Amino acid sequence: MAQKGDLMTVRSDIRVLDATIRDGGLVNNFMFSDEFVNALYFANIKAGVDIMEFGYKASKELFDVDKFGKWKFCDEEAIRSIVGDNNSDMKIAVMADVGRCDYRNDILDKHDSIIDMIRVATYVHQMPSAINMIEYAKSKGYEVTCNIMAISNAQESDVAQALEMVGTSSVDGIYIVDSYGSLYPEQIRRITDIYMETAEKYGKYLGIHAHNNQQLAFANTIEAAASGVSLLDATMMSMGRGAGNCAMELLLSFLKNPKYNIFPVLKFVEKYMLPLKESGVKWGYDIPYLLTGHLNQHPSAAIDYSKEGRSDYTVFYTDLLEK
Amino acid sequence: MAQKGDLMTVRSDIRVLDATIRDGGLVNNFMFSDEFVNALYFANIKAGVDIMEFGYKASKELFDVDKFGKWKFCDEEAIRSIVGDNNSDMKIAVMADVGRCDYRNDILDKHDSIIDMIRVATYVHQMPSAINMIEYAKSKGYEVTCNIMAISNAQESDVAQALEMVGTSSVDGIYIVDSYGSLYPEQIRRITDIYMETAEKYGKYLGIHAHNNQQLAFANTIEAAASGVSLLDATMMSMGRGAGNCAMELLLSFLKNPKYNIFPVLKFVEKYMLPLKESGVKWGYDIPYLLTGHLNQHPSAAIDYSKEGRSDYTVFYTDLLEK
Repeated sequence: MAQKGDLMTVRSDIRVLDATIRDGGLVNNFMFSDEFVNALYFANIKAGVDIMEFGYKASKELFDVDKFGKWKFCDEEAIRSIVGDNNSDMKIAVMADVGRCDYRNDILDKHDSIIDMIRVATYVHQMPSAINMIEYAKSKGYEVTCNIMAISNAQESDVAQALEMVGTSSVDGIYIVDSYGSLYPEQIRRITDIYMETAEKYGKYLGIHAHNNQQLAFANTIEAAASGVSLLDATMMSMGRGAGNCAMELLLSFLKNPKYNIFPVLKFVEKYMLPLKESGVKWGYDIPYLLTGHLNQHPSAAIDYSKEGRSDYTVFYTDLLEK
Repeated sequence: MAQKGDLMTVRSDIRVLDATIRDGGLVNNFMFSDEFVNALYFANIKAGVDIMEFGYKASKELFDVDKFGKWKFCDEEAIRSIVGDNNSDMKIAVMADVGRCDYRNDILDKHDSIIDMIRVATYVHQMPSAINMIEYAKSKGYEVTCNIMAISNAQESDVAQALEMVGTSSVDGIYIVDSYGSLYPEQIRRITDIYMETAEKYGKYLGIHAHNNQQLAFANTIEAAASGVSLLDATMMSMGRGAGNCAMELLLSFLKNPKYNIFPVLKFVEKYMLPLKESGVKWGYDIPYLLTGHLNQHPSAAIDYSKEGRSDYTVFYTDLLEK
């Protein structure tokens, strides 16, 4: 497909979503201080970030509220305690996992909520449930995306059928999600072309959520953008599960729209992310994540290994090969 | 230009060059122990690496031999003390900087040397001297490459003229060098297409040497390869000046030729690179390098900053903007 945009001009359709609290919350069980989230909210506004994702709408039946920070649940009042009436141009998003969200109880009518966007995260085999959630959230008045996870491990024919299903739903955007951080730029371009066919056919936009297992999260994000993807996920200092995500500081330094400003990001990273990292919260590229990404496996083994503080890569690798 | 190769098959023209001692030596003044270099030599052979670069052929008139490790000078006997008669398929390379090498004294006749390849590193404005060195090294019997540095800061018309000059020389290969780590994959593809015109016209091959300032060294290397570049530089655990280079462990996990083996690389990283890093030798992606890369500046300011152990990114950034 022809390249969209270039390195000199502005693509006005591009939007940036900050997923620091949501994907970063997977690293620290969503135990962010109010000061941190508050500072992040204002940093994002100053940086020109278009959408800030606050966390998950997780079921309190399934998950113990005492074991997680409040951003796993994203109660209306929790978000409002940070953003007030959100007197800014930035939108507020939350993620809702298929099978882990009591959406009929927990997703309010848009008129009663400060949330603007619901991101429905699903595996390919859960598509009928995802469609139900999408239609419910749309009927309540939200902008809705469908984030089809772990596609590197799914059959292409199943992904094609999932795209047809979501294409004919009332969803607004469809996400390319490289959950295992195993995809190379040329695969991302090929996948984007496939997703774009559905998107153009049904009038949806595309998003990308990349992981950094092979130091490709930023590269894959900007390559997807060049192929027409317009909603780009990033996190402060790459914070996110395992090897983390596309770094906000890299993405904003790349984008040419003058509304984006890297300086508030640097300030936030300096004041909040570095101390978080120094406190022992672990994320970011490391060889064990490269190996799970390379082998197209879930990063969980690498996360456990990393938590143990081990560096016997060869033992880890042979363990992985025996799986 | 059409893509060369794919993600399933082998490109037999691809070769991998390990530049750990040479580019990594810029970080620790080439102070590697013999044990380290010896272990690296055998790790590279086992990993299927095609060429190992030992260091520079630097002038002993210009540089004090007491202030640098021996790999800044790469005397014949120093290399032979590691490799003996190099009874392996792996070739030995050294780099010779234009204006910093007494090549008429220090580059021996190939018959008297264990070295196979001379890499002539030059800035665009030094091309006539580079051509002299290239012709000299060729006349002595070596495989010779020309590594035109800092092209992101040179005029395109000057680069075009430099390519014509080196194209009509007797050089074997021409390198795309992203000295400042400031180029994006789509620029790398565009530059590769330009270099490829010269390469195909004059029967040369292309190489790539990337830096990781924007976490793009690996992405740029494999994108260049997909556009036809066949000689790929990498270093163990990315070790190299500033943000470092394309990581050998990433590159070998990507390449499909069964002759490449990541395991000896993991073993070497575990046993030698981690202790080196723990000993305080500094390299690798960090925000200051992103900022110099983003601003297309030499990483020297970021290197100094990093050495001071500072993390006031905002002050660093405003300092850079005032330069």
